Amino acid sequence: MANRASENPIITPAMVLPSRPDFEVLGVFNPAVTRHDGQVVLLVRVAEAPRKMSSALAAAPIFNADTGRIEIKRWQVTEKGPDVSDPRLVVDNGKTWLTSMSHLRVARSTDGIHFDVEGLPALVAANAYESFGLEDPRITHLDGVYWITYTAVSHYGIGTGLASTLDFRTFERHGVIFPPPNRNVTIFPEKIGGLYAALHRPMPEGLGQHSIWTARSSDLKSWGSHRLVATPRDGGWDDTKVGGGAVPFRVHYGKEDGWLAIYHGVTGSPPTYSLGALLLNRHDPSRVRARSREPILKPEAPYEREGFFGSVVFTCGALTDGDLVRVYYGAADGVTAVADLSLQEILSGLVEA
Amino acid sequence: MANRASENPIITPAMVLPSRPDFEVLGVFNPAVTRHDGQVVLLVRVAEAPRKMSSALAAAPIFNADTGRIEIKRWQVTEKGPDVSDPRLVVDNGKTWLTSMSHLRVARSTDGIHFDVEGLPALVAANAYESFGLEDPRITHLDGVYWITYTAVSHYGIGTGLASTLDFRTFERHGVIFPPPNRNVTIFPEKIGGLYAALHRPMPEGLGQHSIWTARSSDLKSWGSHRLVATPRDGGWDDTKVGGGAVPFRVHYGKEDGWLAIYHGVTGSPPTYSLGALLLNRHDPSRVRARSREPILKPEAPYEREGFFGSVVFTCGALTDGDLVRVYYGAADGVTAVADLSLQEILSGLVEA
Repeated sequence: MANRASENPIITPAMVLPSRPDFEVLGVFNPAVTRHDGQVVLLVRVAEAPRKMSSALAAAPIFNADTGRIEIKRWQVTEKGPDVSDPRLVVDNGKTWLTSMSHLRVARSTDGIHFDVEGLPALVAANAYESFGLEDPRITHLDGVYWITYTAVSHYGIGTGLASTLDFRTFERHGVIFPPPNRNVTIFPEKIGGLYAALHRPMPEGLGQHSIWTARSSDLKSWGSHRLVATPRDGGWDDTKVGGGAVPFRVHYGKEDGWLAIYHGVTGSPPTYSLGALLLNRHDPSRVRARSREPILKPEAPYEREGFFGSVVFTCGALTDGDLVRVYYGAADGVTAVADLSLQEILSGLVEA
Repeated sequence: MANRASENPIITPAMVLPSRPDFEVLGVFNPAVTRHDGQVVLLVRVAEAPRKMSSALAAAPIFNADTGRIEIKRWQVTEKGPDVSDPRLVVDNGKTWLTSMSHLRVARSTDGIHFDVEGLPALVAANAYESFGLEDPRITHLDGVYWITYTAVSHYGIGTGLASTLDFRTFERHGVIFPPPNRNVTIFPEKIGGLYAALHRPMPEGLGQHSIWTARSSDLKSWGSHRLVATPRDGGWDDTKVGGGAVPFRVHYGKEDGWLAIYHGVTGSPPTYSLGALLLNRHDPSRVRARSREPILKPEAPYEREGFFGSVVFTCGALTDGDLVRVYYGAADGVTAVADLSLQEILSGLVEA
């Protein structure tokens, strides 16, 4: 059903210059996508780490908001600690650090398959809310402006920031719009009932699950009217967590239009990330009309099954043209890939909610 | 330093009629406070549970949004489960239920010490976000309206709802303003720099701590510009969690006014909840000027040390008059108490942040 590009993965770390000479690029993945100036523009997440000098040393890059610089924190790895059993983390005295730091970078293409990645970052850690980096952007073209949501990671938690650009050359930040713990924010591409709308994914522990919520706004910067949209479902490919993926788009379905939201679902341990779709009420996006029974894309290709973090397909954006739904996605937290899906096939795989 | 009322506890479960004959009142605590119509008005949290019929049965009250009624879910307690080791919870197949449900009720007083508790609830569970009840209200009098924030608890998580009233007889809801996991929301009693302001307390796990944040709004219903205010501090009475308490009020401090925010801090296991104060910049409440070195109130009286959940003093509101800061608080999650503090003593106990 999903027609993966034969060129996959279409962007790999080898195509990306590190942001500084002592860093290496570990992954280039989870891109936002839009059309701009006759081109397909991606905003890719580039994960970097300090070049390894010794296996007896652990290192974590961190932006210091007081000095305005990225510093490298290093630990001697001994039996007593720190805990480096998860290669993504250093846990020292109960405090967690990330071994890599992500920034966002622009890539451009005329055919949507072959991309040139810019030599320099577009958005890098610049304040205390981003001290561990920026991840997983989404772009919504609205009122002539490209609005970018991104995950802002720091010792304060995992929240969502908002930025905007007109040209993908200069960017303006608009602060933290969803406080930690909240990520996977996608802004709808038009107002609904006079207000902007977004999907977001709070991360409660104990009471509550990692579910998809909606919120409304009059200015894109302040959000309210939070409502639950969809929870994990028992026993299947999305039984542990769900979160927004691609920016929702309008589709015909049954007697009236709806919003198609491609989302990710998680199951198992270690987790498998797959993609499905929600069909939301056109006038009230908190109401689910239908939902994919089975994934529309799941990790099957070698670059999806094996990588920095295997068994992951994760989308932050898609382009549509008639029946074509071209999904850009991160594979195994390491590379960027693209797959063409049929809108009618996605819709026919939905079951009523 | 804290001068507890000799009448403490000033409200006990024996003073409160249950909301239905098969319920018993377990606690009446954590009141919001304001002045209205020449009286001191409290909005108290009333925690109730189904009357115990057998120790072999566990029960959890839950509001069913489909039927609009409170239902009682019951379990046979066997060795295989459910887990009832924490008397506040029933954990069944990994899903958590509460053994009690709280609603909000009005109490009135002419002297601020002797209260009449209304016979009927003011705000009870009424939608899916409140299916486990409403907790820990705060009242802010603003633009002629009493705005009430409250914790909305359900299987969706622990979030914060907004309601308003003009007369404490009829109430209007305004939805979920801070999605789970987020509680302890206090709205400042005037606009700051043209925008409303609030303190809130997100609850991230892993990355991030249970810290106090601020947010801004133009309408009290949509919130943005989230910024960190204060985290737990190592090694003291507030080293595990901190959260907003009383609605902040303006004070003179040094060369310019600031906002005094009485907050709660948590330490230890089982936890001890004490109160301290933050002195915030008048024009930017995300900036802490000073902070209590030691608690201004900590569990010492018998009704604070022992109760439904011992070693807790927890405030949702205070009244001020010159040097007098009259703090209303919940004690041991069971009763309501009041203590008079000296503003100058609170201020002299602050250390620069």
